[in-house]
Amino acid sequence: MPSPESLQIRSYLLALKAAQGAPAPLAEQRASYEKRIETYVGHPLALPEGTRIESVDIDGIPAEWISPAGADQERVVLFFHGGAYVLGSLTSHRELVARLSAAAGVRSLQVDYRLAPEHVFPAALDDALTAYRWLLAHGTRPEQIVLAGDSAGGGLGLALLQVVRDQHLPMPAGAVFLSPWTDLAGAVDSRATRDVADPIFSGSLINFLANFYAGTEEKHNPLLSPIYADLHGFPPLLIEVGNDEVLLDDSLQLAEHARAAQVPVELTVWEGLWHVFQQYASVLPEGQQSIENMGRFIRSQTRTL
Amino acid sequence: MPSPESLQIRSYLLALKAAQGAPAPLAEQRASYEKRIETYVGHPLALPEGTRIESVDIDGIPAEWISPAGADQERVVLFFHGGAYVLGSLTSHRELVARLSAAAGVRSLQVDYRLAPEHVFPAALDDALTAYRWLLAHGTRPEQIVLAGDSAGGGLGLALLQVVRDQHLPMPAGAVFLSPWTDLAGAVDSRATRDVADPIFSGSLINFLANFYAGTEEKHNPLLSPIYADLHGFPPLLIEVGNDEVLLDDSLQLAEHARAAQVPVELTVWEGLWHVFQQYASVLPEGQQSIENMGRFIRSQTRTL
Repeated sequence: MPSPESLQIRSYLLALKAAQGAPAPLAEQRASYEKRIETYVGHPLALPEGTRIESVDIDGIPAEWISPAGADQERVVLFFHGGAYVLGSLTSHRELVARLSAAAGVRSLQVDYRLAPEHVFPAALDDALTAYRWLLAHGTRPEQIVLAGDSAGGGLGLALLQVVRDQHLPMPAGAVFLSPWTDLAGAVDSRATRDVADPIFSGSLINFLANFYAGTEEKHNPLLSPIYADLHGFPPLLIEVGNDEVLLDDSLQLAEHARAAQVPVELTVWEGLWHVFQQYASVLPEGQQSIENMGRFIRSQTRTL
Repeated sequence: MPSPESLQIRSYLLALKAAQGAPAPLAEQRASYEKRIETYVGHPLALPEGTRIESVDIDGIPAEWISPAGADQERVVLFFHGGAYVLGSLTSHRELVARLSAAAGVRSLQVDYRLAPEHVFPAALDDALTAYRWLLAHGTRPEQIVLAGDSAGGGLGLALLQVVRDQHLPMPAGAVFLSPWTDLAGAVDSRATRDVADPIFSGSLINFLANFYAGTEEKHNPLLSPIYADLHGFPPLLIEVGNDEVLLDDSLQLAEHARAAQVPVELTVWEGLWHVFQQYASVLPEGQQSIENMGRFIRSQTRTL
């Protein structure tokens, strides 16, 4: 028979266990991440009228074409979703990418790159490069391609630009980043200065999440943390970020470094808004405004001369 | 001005953020882990009367000698603390090791091996091997050494035994494991069968924690998950485990595999008890009984012939 003392300690420990909870299995976290905007809105998100979705296999990487009604067939947004390199899918970002595509009047190719912790750095980057090479190989002209990505997908796009440049592949016409995650080492001030104001992340949480994709790789590697990257030769960038997010400085420093490297940069800091607020565009005016701004940029960067 | 919609969504998100909490910084988690037994007991834990503590530097690895009053100076327990390879220190386990030392009538050497995620596999194992070699180099005879460890420290001891055997170093006289963590891949049945009964861990939590030390290493590596190890040539083992812990099968399968490899094994499964319940020995009769049993085993394995 367990002792009376053991029963007492067990009760205490069980209460602690219940209070602390436990991380949900990854599959559950991924499923609830896919639904988090719908959960707020209260109904499934609708794609813009006339949007067509077409699955495509990119040398083994699942991907999809998102084509708004009347889209230009020549110009392409190559989009990488966010989710800390751990969460996110074609489903989680389909509505956002469809809105962005409609605003730009172009098709988008969304890539379901491999996620951590199952696949650590550089798996996601390898997949991003495969997708970019595939686009070029299938006849899309680089001056008709704009990279885009939110959060981790923004960091991934910035890593891809480095590799494209360093491998002497043709650069795309531009890149659009929504709250890009550019400092996985987590040293930027906004991890602390926006710790309370950020309605989604604490600074320690986002820094903690960096461990999954980084694996054993040094987090200052510029392919993980593009704020440490050489940005020379990059195409024009548009960066949209909320003022109230622990990732604010990831954007501010990126913009500063890009300008120092003679890269044309547009930066919009949205007062009172948060990490990838554009995902709430169906119920948030600023979300749709930001998407329209990105659409304008994409059109102007890919305008046939 | 942020839109009214943005204020509403912000409130919703902030409530979610508050409800979910965020992982405390690692330094805080480590500090509260050190105090968790005291927090229950309500006062600092006292070492057995006459215990002496002496810091020692093992080729750069912090360590300490724990010498109970009247301890034999020849025989040594080499102890590795638990804490999922992420938490734990000389402080967190000092009282447990002091009780074990007193019960065995021998000195113990506690090793502050490097922790994850700062230092992934095989850093901890490298440090454990350094400590064992140091003991031998300083004149302790292997037949006077018993390895001991709880939880991750038990897994570490089992990894060390593999390396010692494979490097043709002399084996210690025996090993004592308290709820050893031997399956980082997390496939054993008790992750599910004890998920509710375990008052500390859920099966998914302990499996999740395995990512930190494993890093990019395959978790079936027998140096990470000794239930997959070849145990031939191991010295006699004593395993003490609670019946109500998700790590139960880590011990049961270890014992089974050891017996199949002709390794003498003693196994005690404590009804109604939990992961490393011996840390509650100051207020839990079974904790002290288990420690006495380990003391007896250590004395018998190191008896001068």
